[in-house]
Amino acid sequence: MRVLGIDPGIAIVGFGFIDKQGHKLVPVQYGSIQTEANTDSAVRLQEIYEAAVHLIDKYKPDAVAIEKLFFNKNVTTALTVGQARGVLMLAAVQNGVPIAEYTPLQVKQAIVGYGKAEKKQVQEMVRMFLKLSAVPKPDDVADALAIAICHAHSAGLQQKLNGVGKR
Amino acid sequence: MRVLGIDPGIAIVGFGFIDKQGHKLVPVQYGSIQTEANTDSAVRLQEIYEAAVHLIDKYKPDAVAIEKLFFNKNVTTALTVGQARGVLMLAAVQNGVPIAEYTPLQVKQAIVGYGKAEKKQVQEMVRMFLKLSAVPKPDDVADALAIAICHAHSAGLQQKLNGVGKR
Repeated sequence: MRVLGIDPGIAIVGFGFIDKQGHKLVPVQYGSIQTEANTDSAVRLQEIYEAAVHLIDKYKPDAVAIEKLFFNKNVTTALTVGQARGVLMLAAVQNGVPIAEYTPLQVKQAIVGYGKAEKKQVQEMVRMFLKLSAVPKPDDVADALAIAICHAHSAGLQQKLNGVGKR
Repeated sequence: MRVLGIDPGIAIVGFGFIDKQGHKLVPVQYGSIQTEANTDSAVRLQEIYEAAVHLIDKYKPDAVAIEKLFFNKNVTTALTVGQARGVLMLAAVQNGVPIAEYTPLQVKQAIVGYGKAEKKQVQEMVRMFLKLSAVPKPDDVADALAIAICHAHSAGLQQKLNGVGKR
């Protein structure tokens, strides 16, 4: 199963594709879509959408996992992140890829086993899970990989539960 | 000049196309894009995007005018409206249509000449400006037409100012 994790934003969208091979998690491709601050916001949304369509087309994920809102952010940030999130979700649904959403709390619990974990702990666990030599930068990329790992874990658990149910 | 006014939302998107012919404002087509609450939010965004692409393709506006955030709304509303706004802006920019944004205050000032005008006053002025027999329903449609009228007025004023500058 291939998961695309996304940390949405208007200036930087972090993304990370990982493959779940049995119990192993293998990084496939990760990075960021960045847009210029002094560009029209509709054009920035178009750039994000087109980059996402290209990535989905190239790496063909089976699922997209995207971060749910930080409820402590303000209304303007929520609107801006929402706009980016909207075009990213559109790119996924147009390609028939199911979308799962996780709160930062769920991601931390899945990665560190502790909902109040520090950002650095999460990043270090991402590095270890994926056997990377260093934590990917900027933070948005590590966050996107964390969301992808969270989904890979949840999906694995879900399969086991379904298996139990079917016996 | 043909203006498409949009009042964005996830359940209801109000839209209104109007033509500015000299000093006259003529309604072309108005209505709403509605999506079902018990549908996946990515699918709802896709429905909104596709309806918007269809409308823009059919009525070929010269400009899109869209409502800016109500800053008194909460973070969850802002995120949801932002997602719908993102795919609507994408539909416009992909078709090369410039987007103008107006706050509710600017719309009220343009329509009623008074930023604290009641919703009913704005709606009644929309009805009068466009010579409609009744206020369009739901409110989102009247709001979309109000935003379109606001842009038509502002654009007219801008042309006059440009004209003065060029003498």
